[in-house]
Amino acid sequence: MASENPEQFPGGRWRRRHLLGLQELEKEEILFLLDAADEVARRLEAGRELPSLRGLTAVNLFIEPSTRTRVSFELAAKRLGASVLEIDQESSSIRKGETLKDTARNLEAMGADFLVLRHSAAGAPHFLADRVRSSVINAGDGAHEHPTQGLLDLLTIRRRLGRIDGVRVAIVGDILHSRVARSDIWGLRKLGAEVTLVGPRTLLPEVFARFGVRLSNELEPILPWAQVMILLRIQHERQREGMFPSLGEYVSLYGLSDARLRRCPPEILLMHPGPVERGVEIESELADGPSSVILDQVTSGVAVRMAVFSELARFHRRDREGM
Amino acid sequence: MASENPEQFPGGRWRRRHLLGLQELEKEEILFLLDAADEVARRLEAGRELPSLRGLTAVNLFIEPSTRTRVSFELAAKRLGASVLEIDQESSSIRKGETLKDTARNLEAMGADFLVLRHSAAGAPHFLADRVRSSVINAGDGAHEHPTQGLLDLLTIRRRLGRIDGVRVAIVGDILHSRVARSDIWGLRKLGAEVTLVGPRTLLPEVFARFGVRLSNELEPILPWAQVMILLRIQHERQREGMFPSLGEYVSLYGLSDARLRRCPPEILLMHPGPVERGVEIESELADGPSSVILDQVTSGVAVRMAVFSELARFHRRDREGM
Amino acid sequence: MASENPEQFPGGRWRRRHLLGLQELEKEEILFLLDAADEVARRLEAGRELPSLRGLTAVNLFIEPSTRTRVSFELAAKRLGASVLEIDQESSSIRKGETLKDTARNLEAMGADFLVLRHSAAGAPHFLADRVRSSVINAGDGAHEHPTQGLLDLLTIRRRLGRIDGVRVAIVGDILHSRVARSDIWGLRKLGAEVTLVGPRTLLPEVFARFGVRLSNELEPILPWAQVMILLRIQHERQREGMFPSLGEYVSLYGLSDARLRRCPPEILLMHPGPVERGVEIESELADGPSSVILDQVTSGVAVRMAVFSELARFHRRDREGM
Repeated sequence: MASENPEQFPGGRWRRRHLLGLQELEKEEILFLLDAADEVARRLEAGRELPSLRGLTAVNLFIEPSTRTRVSFELAAKRLGASVLEIDQESSSIRKGETLKDTARNLEAMGADFLVLRHSAAGAPHFLADRVRSSVINAGDGAHEHPTQGLLDLLTIRRRLGRIDGVRVAIVGDILHSRVARSDIWGLRKLGAEVTLVGPRTLLPEVFARFGVRLSNELEPILPWAQVMILLRIQHERQREGMFPSLGEYVSLYGLSDARLRRCPPEILLMHPGPVERGVEIESELADGPSSVILDQVTSGVAVRMAVFSELARFHRRDREGM
Repeated sequence: MASENPEQFPGGRWRRRHLLGLQELEKEEILFLLDAADEVARRLEAGRELPSLRGLTAVNLFIEPSTRTRVSFELAAKRLGASVLEIDQESSSIRKGETLKDTARNLEAMGADFLVLRHSAAGAPHFLADRVRSSVINAGDGAHEHPTQGLLDLLTIRRRLGRIDGVRVAIVGDILHSRVARSDIWGLRKLGAEVTLVGPRTLLPEVFARFGVRLSNELEPILPWAQVMILLRIQHERQREGMFPSLGEYVSLYGLSDARLRRCPPEILLMHPGPVERGVEIESELADGPSSVILDQVTSGVAVRMAVFSELARFHRRDREGM
Repeated sequence: MASENPEQFPGGRWRRRHLLGLQELEKEEILFLLDAADEVARRLEAGRELPSLRGLTAVNLFIEPSTRTRVSFELAAKRLGASVLEIDQESSSIRKGETLKDTARNLEAMGADFLVLRHSAAGAPHFLADRVRSSVINAGDGAHEHPTQGLLDLLTIRRRLGRIDGVRVAIVGDILHSRVARSDIWGLRKLGAEVTLVGPRTLLPEVFARFGVRLSNELEPILPWAQVMILLRIQHERQREGMFPSLGEYVSLYGLSDARLRRCPPEILLMHPGPVERGVEIESELADGPSSVILDQVTSGVAVRMAVFSELARFHRRDREGM
């Protein structure tokens, strides 16, 4: 699929060292990355090798635990022929009192070309990006951003519906604590989608209205409207404190049941960043049903991350050669 | 070494997507894999590269802890040029309540070609095999099967004695809880070996007599008979409960001492799936002595796993090209 | 940079299977490895591939936890195209009661060409080296030696000052417990540097005077003398027991402050094996200042380890071909 607006992208090529968030990207940059990911996906399907990271080193620096995202980045880098290092909180010197900056600069001194950072503090990747020459890729910072998740959601929608512009998307659940929601909102709005956020008042602050989206505390009225529904993971920990809603209340108010799905347009796409808790955000059968594109998201995730690595590497090399 | 019965193997090539157990394999299939492993071993000794998994991805999904088997699979896949991912219980989303099926399907959506599964539940690999298109390799499921261990034991015996048919094998120890014993029994019996299981009544249920093997609660009468002795690891945990035999009783009744070894035929092969507990199943000096082929088993293990990966990959590719 | 004494090195090539310590190396061997590391560094800077370990397998066997050294060895081996396995105490069968020797021989039987061993017991690598055919590389054994750290310190000094011979080096801190100090002392003395050890009596035993170095319990008089200052990490655990000096006393007596730095020669090099505890061994600004070569050490470390792997591999191959 060609970029929707190729002529608007200045120079037609990538010009950033880091990928920190979708907030700071131009519409044309997002489209450029989606096109690059589409191209990667096509090559993967054709069984072609993509050795564009040969000789480069990627470090997965996951200070906050993760499985899915970490594995997806690891696979993406390995498929591109990079050397890949996995460093988690346990195995980092951060336990010995080393600062994040020192850890990163040491990895850079060892030859790391990419630092893929997952951190519980919002802004940690931006902090690092100002202090290293390696490319920093934000793999989730607190409740702030998760740009590759945003991109893979966009890619999944565009591959299914052929466009993002004008598509009606509902994001349902714990918006307050979700970096996925934030990156999705930035990406979807920049590309012209209509977005409604759905969730209980306690998890959906009024301030989100500023982002050009609509808010709804009820799911029912949104069902016939939505072409895409992104269901977010509910964090048990936060519900245990006697806060509204309890897990049971959440399921009854916002859980996607078969009855609710029948009120949606028949061609609706059901999305979830995973891991899915069957019977909470969505009934088990629906997660595997024909409307679900949850596994497509996972597949898109590898393509998106491969594209991001490749474009940042290309920038790196131009930069090094003084072009 | 050529297959003992090459003409009996239909089509002369591998035709399964998964390796779940030796129980379901035909004699000819087992011989085919042993021949393939022999060929791999010869190439490794000649220092030749074996890049037959280039571009493919293997995931070691070890829900139950393991070192030896995990490392052997990891090395086998890396030597063949595959991208390898290591996922254990700690690092999997299974901790977050994700089902095994969802974990597997996510890995498949990321592009996993092989899922090497170690799981505490018997039948877990068969369950997965019905639900994914990736190749599932059973790396040990509960007390059920451990087919690559069975194959490496067969390969070790055949490389030393030139045949399996008619060879007299004693398997000694905790038969009840041993998946190794089960896979060995299937493989040895299909290939015509005579098998005697030796152990205390509490660890050697009568039901095993059904498998065409003899049972003995005493080791002494078996010593002069056996050409191969496979000593199983004793699980301390199970002996602590006041159950017969205690660890001391076990050593005195079934531990292989120098005195006992002298009652065996001089050319006897001593085998152990490891890790060996020196002074329990076997006296320390014997484990390193001239009769021990314990390290040969380890070497055979890598060759067997490389052969299994390669043959499954060949099937995959034929399957994909519609051949 | 050419070896300072190439004609003295017998045969002009490496002739050891293992790297156990700098104590047992001839001056010419140390220079040979430094030259090899210089060559590696030049190739890395030129962006050239160095696939000299293709087809070989390196195992990082870290029985004592480590991050920096482990990651550096891992990266070095991966950059050279080796298959790399990571085994720590948790993931080794040593937990199941397996001996270090058995673990090593099993890894060797699986095809390990290199065993990179970090162990809390002094002499553990020497013990293994007598019992395996794989190349053993000492990655730190107790308070005994850390030869690749010694080599990288030498390389860093030589790259900055053009020589080692006659250079005045102060090593400051917990000498007693430091394997880094021991390897540095062996290397520096063999190559003709003048060495002064600085630290409190409790951490600087008289016995060190035997090694051809001077001892000083005071830092102040050493400041104007030193051309290189190697600051060692202080182990908090050891200070908590009411022992002299407390952490505060240490900082006031031996911590490198800006005032102290101004008493040093202007071209002084500040070194630290890391991880640096800012504000203890050195003021935070100085660690990042123009005199610090701490990150150069990290970069040199990868080059040194790549050179060590390459030279040992060359020996291996000659050995195998009977040359």
